[in-house]
Amino acid sequence: MAGSSVKAKGQPRAMKPVEEVDISAVRYQSPQLQAPHMTGFSLRLFVWLMESPLLGRLVTSLLKSQNNMTRMLQDTVIPERPMYIPQYPPQEPEQGVVLLEEDTDPVERVEKALQCLLPYDPSVHWMTEERPPFLYWKIRDFAHAYRSGITTPSVVAEHVIAGVEEWSNKEPPMPMLVYFNADDLRKQAEASTKRFQQGNPISILDGIFIAIKDDIDCFPYPSKGATTFFDKIRTVEKDAVCVARLRKCGVIFIGKANMHELGLGVTGNNPNYGTARNPHSVDRYTGGSSSGPAALVSSGLCPVAIGTDGGGSVRIPSALCGIIGLKTTYGRTNMTGALCDCGTVEVASPLAASVEDAMLVYSAIAGSRPMDKLILRPSPLCVPNLVFPDNNNILKSVKIGKYTEWFHDVSDREISNTCEKALDLLCSNFRCQIEEIILPELEEMRTAHLVSIGTESFCDLNPHYKAGKRTEFTLDTRTSLALFGSFTSTDYVASQRIRRRIMYYHNEAFKKVDVIATPTTG
Amino acid sequence: MAGSSVKAKGQPRAMKPVEEVDISAVRYQSPQLQAPHMTGFSLRLFVWLMESPLLGRLVTSLLKSQNNMTRMLQDTVIPERPMYIPQYPPQEPEQGVVLLEEDTDPVERVEKALQCLLPYDPSVHWMTEERPPFLYWKIRDFAHAYRSGITTPSVVAEHVIAGVEEWSNKEPPMPMLVYFNADDLRKQAEASTKRFQQGNPISILDGIFIAIKDDIDCFPYPSKGATTFFDKIRTVEKDAVCVARLRKCGVIFIGKANMHELGLGVTGNNPNYGTARNPHSVDRYTGGSSSGPAALVSSGLCPVAIGTDGGGSVRIPSALCGIIGLKTTYGRTNMTGALCDCGTVEVASPLAASVEDAMLVYSAIAGSRPMDKLILRPSPLCVPNLVFPDNNNILKSVKIGKYTEWFHDVSDREISNTCEKALDLLCSNFRCQIEEIILPELEEMRTAHLVSIGTESFCDLNPHYKAGKRTEFTLDTRTSLALFGSFTSTDYVASQRIRRRIMYYHNEAFKKVDVIATPTTG
Repeated sequence: MAGSSVKAKGQPRAMKPVEEVDISAVRYQSPQLQAPHMTGFSLRLFVWLMESPLLGRLVTSLLKSQNNMTRMLQDTVIPERPMYIPQYPPQEPEQGVVLLEEDTDPVERVEKALQCLLPYDPSVHWMTEERPPFLYWKIRDFAHAYRSGITTPSVVAEHVIAGVEEWSNKEPPMPMLVYFNADDLRKQAEASTKRFQQGNPISILDGIFIAIKDDIDCFPYPSKGATTFFDKIRTVEKDAVCVARLRKCGVIFIGKANMHELGLGVTGNNPNYGTARNPHSVDRYTGGSSSGPAALVSSGLCPVAIGTDGGGSVRIPSALCGIIGLKTTYGRTNMTGALCDCGTVEVASPLAASVEDAMLVYSAIAGSRPMDKLILRPSPLCVPNLVFPDNNNILKSVKIGKYTEWFHDVSDREISNTCEKALDLLCSNFRCQIEEIILPELEEMRTAHLVSIGTESFCDLNPHYKAGKRTEFTLDTRTSLALFGSFTSTDYVASQRIRRRIMYYHNEAFKKVDVIATPTTG
Repeated sequence: MAGSSVKAKGQPRAMKPVEEVDISAVRYQSPQLQAPHMTGFSLRLFVWLMESPLLGRLVTSLLKSQNNMTRMLQDTVIPERPMYIPQYPPQEPEQGVVLLEEDTDPVERVEKALQCLLPYDPSVHWMTEERPPFLYWKIRDFAHAYRSGITTPSVVAEHVIAGVEEWSNKEPPMPMLVYFNADDLRKQAEASTKRFQQGNPISILDGIFIAIKDDIDCFPYPSKGATTFFDKIRTVEKDAVCVARLRKCGVIFIGKANMHELGLGVTGNNPNYGTARNPHSVDRYTGGSSSGPAALVSSGLCPVAIGTDGGGSVRIPSALCGIIGLKTTYGRTNMTGALCDCGTVEVASPLAASVEDAMLVYSAIAGSRPMDKLILRPSPLCVPNLVFPDNNNILKSVKIGKYTEWFHDVSDREISNTCEKALDLLCSNFRCQIEEIILPELEEMRTAHLVSIGTESFCDLNPHYKAGKRTEFTLDTRTSLALFGSFTSTDYVASQRIRRRIMYYHNEAFKKVDVIATPTTG
């Protein structure tokens, strides 16, 4: 990367200490990814090669070398200390926000968040709005309908059940859920309906239908991570913490949503259960790994679903399905009860049809693990106060960071042009300002991220993989795991050194801007 | 390990969550280490094997499997989250201590620590004490001698120079220093002598002779880590932080002390410069890796030396040379300017001929890195107040933890019997109490430690190793590096899971006892 590394004669390549890098002089470099594209027999042969003890080592070495991984992680002196989990300098308190106490009842937090929303009259809104291709009811629409007697959770449940069945029986099939129990759904809806009949709904989320990605525990449903067998090696004994918080608010759980097997891919392609196709165009992928959650929300079957995101797994399918995907700061939500609860990148967070629903559900599920409070010291949990008088024009002061060359490094310029138009709208309608930024070492970031998430996933799976489950994974997963198994311990530590650099560059960018805007996928 | 792991049929071995382990039921298991013992040609052949791409993989696999590393780190489900750096629950403030402000001038801290020592009259002490085989002057002895005009730093410098030369010219030779510059030493001593003549010594440490291990920067001396070439790939531009703190107090630096090459061994054997032999018995090792510092202090050439310890490197040579070795809590001292400043285990800390000197020097060098304060949140820096009225019998309330089976698992029972006698003395003279404790999973701890320290060392060296420096390391180091290079990224993460378990077991033990006593080496 120009400006940030030097190579003296007879010495290894060395990166400059991050504080000495002249960021303004860094030139963008387009990624040079090389990976074979295979299906059918050639894929099976490739997996066999990758998994064979000695030949596999040669193949993975070649892949790592072709993609510059060896050069970046083994042949380069990286002067920074490893940063094993995301660390931030202490931050100024934010303006125009309402603090939510982390350890309070989620019902109270949701109530507080609700008070922050702009006034909205669902009855007027429904009648006047033009019908979009899918009808997206917001949480406040459902809440109004239940409270005014227009409908009940039990009635909605029958629509949801019919909808799930209709999509599943479509040709081609469209399995948005990998576990669905209509009887249990009816029971949950009945209990909620009763609460409304008795005039005692628990919260604004009472009777709201939410789907849970199959890698988050939702008792008594099994958690398979959309594998064929994971429920046999790991028993679900209770709700994951984020699910328990939603259940406390009266949420009705639709079932376990389809996903890329174990989250190890970004298409959502799943040979075990079939692939949750994109409701807007059933010949296309939803993106992944939270394919089912995105398909369910974008098809209008539920206003919100909970996914997990360690490398785009909420953001990518949300973008590809035209909905809202929130990836929170690492550690913001207690991950206990998720399959990927031991890593340093994943979070559990909402996919929603509207920003306000993402905000309401976020306020319910947020709250760090006690041990993370000790070490991550997250800044106080808050939501924006949209009704605060000075916040009417809050967008005016927002500075949007844009790394133009990266922004337009896309497979089809239509993608970035569409994003550009969205930015133009923000500027013309709300007077946001665009600031040019530079984020150095994006290729190093991608590599360090792959090594981190790959290692952390594989570490969980390794004992089962070696105890005979290897062949029960899909070929796609087996390819990934064989690659992850080839990472050395120094690859991992070097990646954490890169993490410190990347965090520095992002902190530098955030000194200039409030948000960074990019197309979600190129 | 009995009580802490189970293996169901067709499933991998799984450890119980650490909170569910019945520690009292855990049975001690003696380590079953297997490693070939080789010298000369067989060692060269073995190194060649270890370093060859494919055969090396077979040999390291065999070694890892024979020593149960594969079973522990790859074939076992470890339910805990990784703990990448040592984390502690918030701790109660300690009683009977004096707090030292971390960010104050080291001179002030040393002054505060000095006030905590019991009264001592060096003039009386010298005259009456029986002469031991080596004459150990304490810091307070030097301070008295300088202030009363008995001697000057310049006079002592000549003794030190003569001593260093005498030991170096002994048969067999005994290179305690790998860098020594008599002229520079004289210059430092002259400056100190002048301060005393002018009546302006800086602190109690003014004119005190201290040696620095060769992996800590002491400007303008080179830092080689006792390799032959490290000064060519890494330039010393200023003192390491701990050295700068000592220099500020008026310390005179003797030179760079010998060590096991790059600290990667515990004997102190160094083919590059010769081995710093044990002054008490020149046919024996000092232990390592801080061999030179221990030899210098135990031979009486200086009261204190600074070493580094990531796996016993201060404690082992101190024990084998009959001096005091302090390994502080990780992160207690800023490691900037040490060769091993990027790991998660090493500290820089004193080897001294007396406990009080270790305490004085510790108070000068202590003080965390700013970034460590954010994440490690160390408990306040303090030293025991030995003159506090209630502290006269402070040892009476000390509970000493002893894991008897581990304590006596030694190659020669004479070792543990001697330690036993020391404990008996503490009990009879000071009424300390011994409490039996159990520390489960010591073998897992040893393995996780090896993977952590090995990976972190190798990550630093890897770019140079691959750029052609491989053959410039000693055969001993090359064997270690070839092994470290065979660790996978999941080995590393699994080791950090084990770290969380081990920290838990130690925290449990420290609920019952104040200290844990063991022979330093078995």
